[in-house]
Amino acid sequence: MARGFRQKIRQKNTENSGFGSNAPSGRFINKDGLPNVKRRGVNVFNRLSWYHTMLNLSSFRFLSYLVIAYIVINLGFAFIYYLIGVEHLTGIDKSDPLNEFVDVFFFSSQTFTTVGYGRIAPVGFAASLVATFEAFLGLLTFAIATGLFYGRFSRPRAYLKFSENMVLAPFQGSTALMFRLAPYKNNALTDAEVIVSAAIEVIENGVPKSNFYRLETQMSKINTLALNWTIVHKIDENSPFYGFTENDFKTTDIEIIVQLRAFDEVFSNTVVQRTSYTSNEIVYGAKFTPMYYPSKDNLTTVLNLDKINEYQKAELPVAEEVQL
Amino acid sequence: MARGFRQKIRQKNTENSGFGSNAPSGRFINKDGLPNVKRRGVNVFNRLSWYHTMLNLSSFRFLSYLVIAYIVINLGFAFIYYLIGVEHLTGIDKSDPLNEFVDVFFFSSQTFTTVGYGRIAPVGFAASLVATFEAFLGLLTFAIATGLFYGRFSRPRAYLKFSENMVLAPFQGSTALMFRLAPYKNNALTDAEVIVSAAIEVIENGVPKSNFYRLETQMSKINTLALNWTIVHKIDENSPFYGFTENDFKTTDIEIIVQLRAFDEVFSNTVVQRTSYTSNEIVYGAKFTPMYYPSKDNLTTVLNLDKINEYQKAELPVAEEVQL
Amino acid sequence: MARGFRQKIRQKNTENSGFGSNAPSGRFINKDGLPNVKRRGVNVFNRLSWYHTMLNLSSFRFLSYLVIAYIVINLGFAFIYYLIGVEHLTGIDKSDPLNEFVDVFFFSSQTFTTVGYGRIAPVGFAASLVATFEAFLGLLTFAIATGLFYGRFSRPRAYLKFSENMVLAPFQGSTALMFRLAPYKNNALTDAEVIVSAAIEVIENGVPKSNFYRLETQMSKINTLALNWTIVHKIDENSPFYGFTENDFKTTDIEIIVQLRAFDEVFSNTVVQRTSYTSNEIVYGAKFTPMYYPSKDNLTTVLNLDKINEYQKAELPVAEEVQL
Amino acid sequence: MARGFRQKIRQKNTENSGFGSNAPSGRFINKDGLPNVKRRGVNVFNRLSWYHTMLNLSSFRFLSYLVIAYIVINLGFAFIYYLIGVEHLTGIDKSDPLNEFVDVFFFSSQTFTTVGYGRIAPVGFAASLVATFEAFLGLLTFAIATGLFYGRFSRPRAYLKFSENMVLAPFQGSTALMFRLAPYKNNALTDAEVIVSAAIEVIENGVPKSNFYRLETQMSKINTLALNWTIVHKIDENSPFYGFTENDFKTTDIEIIVQLRAFDEVFSNTVVQRTSYTSNEIVYGAKFTPMYYPSKDNLTTVLNLDKINEYQKAELPVAEEVQL
Repeated sequence: MARGFRQKIRQKNTENSGFGSNAPSGRFINKDGLPNVKRRGVNVFNRLSWYHTMLNLSSFRFLSYLVIAYIVINLGFAFIYYLIGVEHLTGIDKSDPLNEFVDVFFFSSQTFTTVGYGRIAPVGFAASLVATFEAFLGLLTFAIATGLFYGRFSRPRAYLKFSENMVLAPFQGSTALMFRLAPYKNNALTDAEVIVSAAIEVIENGVPKSNFYRLETQMSKINTLALNWTIVHKIDENSPFYGFTENDFKTTDIEIIVQLRAFDEVFSNTVVQRTSYTSNEIVYGAKFTPMYYPSKDNLTTVLNLDKINEYQKAELPVAEEVQL
Repeated sequence: MARGFRQKIRQKNTENSGFGSNAPSGRFINKDGLPNVKRRGVNVFNRLSWYHTMLNLSSFRFLSYLVIAYIVINLGFAFIYYLIGVEHLTGIDKSDPLNEFVDVFFFSSQTFTTVGYGRIAPVGFAASLVATFEAFLGLLTFAIATGLFYGRFSRPRAYLKFSENMVLAPFQGSTALMFRLAPYKNNALTDAEVIVSAAIEVIENGVPKSNFYRLETQMSKINTLALNWTIVHKIDENSPFYGFTENDFKTTDIEIIVQLRAFDEVFSNTVVQRTSYTSNEIVYGAKFTPMYYPSKDNLTTVLNLDKINEYQKAELPVAEEVQL
Repeated sequence: MARGFRQKIRQKNTENSGFGSNAPSGRFINKDGLPNVKRRGVNVFNRLSWYHTMLNLSSFRFLSYLVIAYIVINLGFAFIYYLIGVEHLTGIDKSDPLNEFVDVFFFSSQTFTTVGYGRIAPVGFAASLVATFEAFLGLLTFAIATGLFYGRFSRPRAYLKFSENMVLAPFQGSTALMFRLAPYKNNALTDAEVIVSAAIEVIENGVPKSNFYRLETQMSKINTLALNWTIVHKIDENSPFYGFTENDFKTTDIEIIVQLRAFDEVFSNTVVQRTSYTSNEIVYGAKFTPMYYPSKDNLTTVLNLDKINEYQKAELPVAEEVQL
Repeated sequence: MARGFRQKIRQKNTENSGFGSNAPSGRFINKDGLPNVKRRGVNVFNRLSWYHTMLNLSSFRFLSYLVIAYIVINLGFAFIYYLIGVEHLTGIDKSDPLNEFVDVFFFSSQTFTTVGYGRIAPVGFAASLVATFEAFLGLLTFAIATGLFYGRFSRPRAYLKFSENMVLAPFQGSTALMFRLAPYKNNALTDAEVIVSAAIEVIENGVPKSNFYRLETQMSKINTLALNWTIVHKIDENSPFYGFTENDFKTTDIEIIVQLRAFDEVFSNTVVQRTSYTSNEIVYGAKFTPMYYPSKDNLTTVLNLDKINEYQKAELPVAEEVQL
């Protein structure tokens, strides 16, 4: 990872990132905003919050897990009823063992879901006891499923799309690092605030080390996040990138870490979304093209989300060589 | 939209509104507080948060959708059972095909709701399997419905009524823009805070452009939002409307954007409500009439919500011509 | 209400209370912390948030309403089934009309709760259709009940007991208004903050009028609200009560409004509780007695909540007559 | 508890801890972060929030309570049905009283869970009425269980592991008190903030008394709590421990109280965790060993949670005797 870096950064107040400065191993924040850290030790059950896990599953996987659990539980109970003996259940088709098992499986599912048609019903003590327990378990399971469903869809999320690349664009006679973001769902975000940091690898005493810098942006708060928002970090003397050439950007290990925080009016809650950009995601000499325009009747504004990654080439002003 | 505007506004610190300043297309914030923006691109499923959508439906539409979904799902399953064959269900009235279909429809509903009387019950493998799946789906559906109901009625909301109009009223020897609001439900709001902004269309180099200004108010925070609250923006030298004549108010594209934030003690959560007023909703030379009075026994205060829009004509002081 | 008041209060920065200053009608905040305001206008359904209402009911009334609703709904459906005709239900005891009605009532309840034993089951189209709808309604009702139960017991509350009286106690050679509060449940409150205001009635130009003052307290924030907390407002030159005699306290309309805000670690939420004290709840010349002591093994502290209202007489220093 | 303490602490601004300064009885905050206070008075039902209690139970105990409640309720209803008479239930095995009771027990469970096979079903008025009520109670019980499950697993928690000991380690030519913490689950904490206080017992006029001090730390906020975090309180002239010798640390009653507050992105909520360290948990002359390292492929960082308590001996600089 440690590519050559010309020691251009003057000492600035570095940030408390929560990442140690030694042993930088790959990026700090993954593209999806989670820290690039693996945990070891403790045992896996203590290390995982199953609730966080269930909330982060895709809908498809979540539903698949529910269906699989339903089938496995019913197979398990069917097996128990079968061991107890089909003679303790009324209405079983006893023509052959397979039919018997099929019928106890369906009896199990009718008990677990509390449908209980009664065409098949328990008569002995053992079968009745198991059925009593299974119905109880069924209800608790659906109680948990109810909570998980609610937890999943009521989970406050920002629903933001970030541009895939950062661009180095001309800005006010100088250059600026820019990226943009837009809410892509019918949510209403207000009081949006962005925090941008940079992790830059430097060589200190021959050892690679990551320094963290807070990047100042032209606007760091807006009232309403209704359209897209282009965040602009002007590269002036307060920027750690002051004096960087195109080659510096390409040969230095840079990671730009972005955190956006806003208030969602439907959830009435603060939502946070993070992402990060690495050196190879920075486009040198480009600017974003507009992504919103007036509607035909001129009464509303249209935001085209497919254009969020669109940029065009742009000439950068010649950077004066900085004296260090 | 761009009506003539006399360039009276002196340069002030404009606000970061989150709306671009070009291409103003209709109002920025709709009367209901949502931004006047349409999103395109992505596909419609990714662009809609169905949870936000379900929470914003009216009660009537929400219940209608539930009933329709219930009928459609049962029709679908009835069709499947019918295809499998009514001979795989006990207790079906086989007098004619319509009666058969009616009975499988009711069997389906008895399975989906897990009532499962058992007068009609599945006997074969295929019908039992479908019923097993339907009962499972039924429970998951009601799990989701439970979450939606809870999400809908536990959603923190401010329940504020805003006056339909703003008035330009005499105030402390000068004039002031006023509107008022009142909580109309039995909720208890504290620490209320209001933020008022104005979007004013100006012509710069022949191109219409919207500038955003924060409007200062006489009182922007109150401890308890128990009665109505009249928000007063005095038009003095700090106001972008300083020197505006009645004609200016009528011929300039103005939008006043209001955001109220408070703490609801029942939800124990921050609630936010927004609205906006446009030029044609501003009444020149009027003042609100009181809307609360002591009860007959003089032991409590009565707030009459029907009077929130009541105002009476009021003479404004003659505005001195402002030198620009 | 307007008792004689000697105009001793010097002009201070009054507070934005959210209550108008005219027409004070009874106390502002009731003992339970809710504003003493009645709302009129709109219609009653729009004026009540039924969710807020259900959350504020006592457990007994809440459960009673559920039971009553259950009985009424079943009676209604029983009536419908009875009108359709008992011949459309199997297993009805037709010995006499009362028995018939009793049986359709129980069929209704077995459908609404989705028990569906099947001893009584619908056979015709009309009865089946109504049962289909009733089972659906039953599930939705229990979905709503689930949400209400959760809303009720997960509602963040501070569970604070306030002393019934305020005392005017000797304090640092002067006097101070004191009251105390203690958490009475096994909740853990941190970062507690108290805000104390006073509404004092004054006569301006012959008209009674309420002024609001923020009362400064010796300590307004504490880290952990584990024991009781005595809040002390010293009556010095910054207090609106500076120079008040015992008679002034007794003859002036005073209302002390208290708001406590803390963070509950189980709910992970901010909780707020309010109360108010009026003139007749202020005890002149008294001090609170301690309410916590070490346990016998000296390893823990015991807080006796029954002592929260205990005070003893205490001599106050002679107040010097204040020059106004 | 009151061991000899040499009066070395110079007067500093003490903190508002919420604990009284008299009668220190054992530690203030237990290791699990709850205050070491017992409440008396009121009655036990008013003193306990059963919801807080249910949320704090271990999973095993919580499930056990549910199972026990299920059995007890069914036994109770079985007893009622038995008293009413088994002749009011169809399908009962009347071979002997025990079998009868077993069958009414299972009927009860089939009613409570709303399975309602119907093999056993009520026929008389009394039995039907009880069953009507039991099914209703069953649904309400599962409604409450649903809420409790959701409340339990959606409860925002920090999931932090603290090191068992504090160490007194060499730091920047001086010494520092250090402890460390790490998130041990797959949660993502941001904007973490730590507050460290010390309760130190002093003898004033021969009476032991606890003073509270806020301890300044080198870094009190970090952006991302992804790795472990070592919190460092440097013992310089601003520290209440300035000039303490090893013997002072061993013979003085010290309690270090730690509160960490962070934002969890999955819960979108603030989470808080507290703990405390007492004198005997402070290791004199030691430093923590690193607990994270690069992965083999050098692309990620591995955090080994089992190493959180690991430290090694470290020589401390000789503390100069402080003049008091």
